[in-house]
Amino acid sequence: VDYLRNSQSATADDIAKIANVSRVAVSRAFNPSASIKPEKRALILKLAQELNYVPNHAARSLVTKRSHLVGVIVPDVCSPWESQEIDALTTSLQSEGFATLLFKTRADKQIDPQLLSYISGFNPDSVIVFVENVRRETLAKVIGRAVPIYVEYDNQTPLANDEGAGMLYDRLNICQRQGMEQAVALLHGFDCKRIAFLDGHPRSLAARERKRALSQIMAGRGMAPPIIVPGDFTYDSAHAAILSQFRVDNGVDAIFAANDVSAFGAIDALRYSLGLRVPKDVKVIGFDNITQAKWRAYDLTTVKVDLRERVDALIRLILRRLKTPDAPILIESLSTSLVVRGSVG
Amino acid sequence: VDYLRNSQSATADDIAKIANVSRVAVSRAFNPSASIKPEKRALILKLAQELNYVPNHAARSLVTKRSHLVGVIVPDVCSPWESQEIDALTTSLQSEGFATLLFKTRADKQIDPQLLSYISGFNPDSVIVFVENVRRETLAKVIGRAVPIYVEYDNQTPLANDEGAGMLYDRLNICQRQGMEQAVALLHGFDCKRIAFLDGHPRSLAARERKRALSQIMAGRGMAPPIIVPGDFTYDSAHAAILSQFRVDNGVDAIFAANDVSAFGAIDALRYSLGLRVPKDVKVIGFDNITQAKWRAYDLTTVKVDLRERVDALIRLILRRLKTPDAPILIESLSTSLVVRGSVG
Repeated sequence: VDYLRNSQSATADDIAKIANVSRVAVSRAFNPSASIKPEKRALILKLAQELNYVPNHAARSLVTKRSHLVGVIVPDVCSPWESQEIDALTTSLQSEGFATLLFKTRADKQIDPQLLSYISGFNPDSVIVFVENVRRETLAKVIGRAVPIYVEYDNQTPLANDEGAGMLYDRLNICQRQGMEQAVALLHGFDCKRIAFLDGHPRSLAARERKRALSQIMAGRGMAPPIIVPGDFTYDSAHAAILSQFRVDNGVDAIFAANDVSAFGAIDALRYSLGLRVPKDVKVIGFDNITQAKWRAYDLTTVKVDLRERVDALIRLILRRLKTPDAPILIESLSTSLVVRGSVG
Repeated sequence: VDYLRNSQSATADDIAKIANVSRVAVSRAFNPSASIKPEKRALILKLAQELNYVPNHAARSLVTKRSHLVGVIVPDVCSPWESQEIDALTTSLQSEGFATLLFKTRADKQIDPQLLSYISGFNPDSVIVFVENVRRETLAKVIGRAVPIYVEYDNQTPLANDEGAGMLYDRLNICQRQGMEQAVALLHGFDCKRIAFLDGHPRSLAARERKRALSQIMAGRGMAPPIIVPGDFTYDSAHAAILSQFRVDNGVDAIFAANDVSAFGAIDALRYSLGLRVPKDVKVIGFDNITQAKWRAYDLTTVKVDLRERVDALIRLILRRLKTPDAPILIESLSTSLVVRGSVG
């Protein structure tokens, strides 16, 4: 082992010569997504290991202009929804020959120009922006050749010309409304009269759109408008906000939470601090369908965004744009649906 | 915006000339951890943005031999413990001028040589190996110049000479025993007689060491050996295993779970499927102290590994090794302690 570490490393040319293959074949063997005969790949990888050859992406990226890095900008890796998405995304990117480069926004979820410059210095092939509060113009200017992918909500309209002229914004559009309509129908069917919306983070576009959709759907059914309870997507804030709400108004008979984690905080506040039963006294619905939603303690009815479909769509957007840099704007759309569990009915 | 995107980008030399600073200053301005006067940094970043200059790490890394990338190899990003650690690690790495490069092991938690070659192609400055089942020799050979950091458990002994000769293995050693001794003392104090150990994944060194420590501590107190219940760190397997265990033996009065998530599965099985009360009928202790451990539905007594301390120690190991490549093996040690909540007592 030691003599290998101390000796000079082999080059791709050395491997190609010994294996009697082309240099391109050596390169393909190291890309898990490249098509190459299994025996050929095995031979090349075996020789590479024996001769201590490792491909260097940094050097290669200067030639190919491809870094094989996909930047992912998130406010929190540790929120269950984001961690589950990053997990699935990393698996898929890896199988396509890319690696995930993680970046976190500031604590207030803002992205400053310094962070964007910093990210662009790593020369990512693509950047997935899970945060919603960075201006497109700022991002486009700083990210350079990487094509950002935005996640949007209930919006099929291409960008207005003045905003998007000459710039590409591939997008994943989540049709949140579908699942929310099913959720409201369920609560309406149980004759819920005072429905609270437990809000998400004030800076979140997703939460804002969920709130708006809920109000519209309820109005469309002739129901009283939802009572808005402030929140920020966390368990702790949800727990505290529901306690405050019920101190002034204990007539709420259903809670629609902006995400699953805050639904858990609401359920625990109802059960353990207010002595109320879920679903008998108060029904609770969440949004996301994270793994924990099916845990027995919560058994949460929730609006499901299929994680597999979501990640597959993101990967398709990234690969299409890399293959065809000048293609017109691409929009992938994802549907949502209600998963009914014990927290309602 | 468009004319900027289409025009030639400025170089570091251009920025240095216009700002009337050195080239080194331009480079430092983009490294969040480099010391530079705030006004100078602000001026350089402002000019860089106006003139569309972005530093290129790929090019720079060929000169400096530093990629500013730290590889992190994990089996699952989405387990709460790992996602919380990756989150804290990414924040700290970013503030030191590094970025986190995520890699996932195969579904069976194995690392194959192809994945290691793939990782080394990105030329990371350091690699943190959270998985325990890759041979050190394999890793050292393939990772090349990056220094791997291992996480170990209850082991202060430097490596035997034959295994470690000429190779460096910086390590973070978690002293699991301390917190576990406190946990057993608590259960002993409550006069628990039949204690089950809900095991972790069979390939996990951490779980194996936890099982061994528990047996030794209980034997030291003259208690009957723990009943071993199989598991794999997941909620679902824990839930199923506790149901099976109680079907053949309902005399268990305490469960020590190998991690918090499986403790949650155990609690839900006890309460919702077996009709038992926690802690009155069965006391439950976990390991990790993840955020969810304090959720009211679980209110879990658990062995705490301080996440902040753990990440700080990892960062110290990485930075020391990069600064002094030939320094002797470095071992950081972390203590553990019991956090007592409602699931016991």
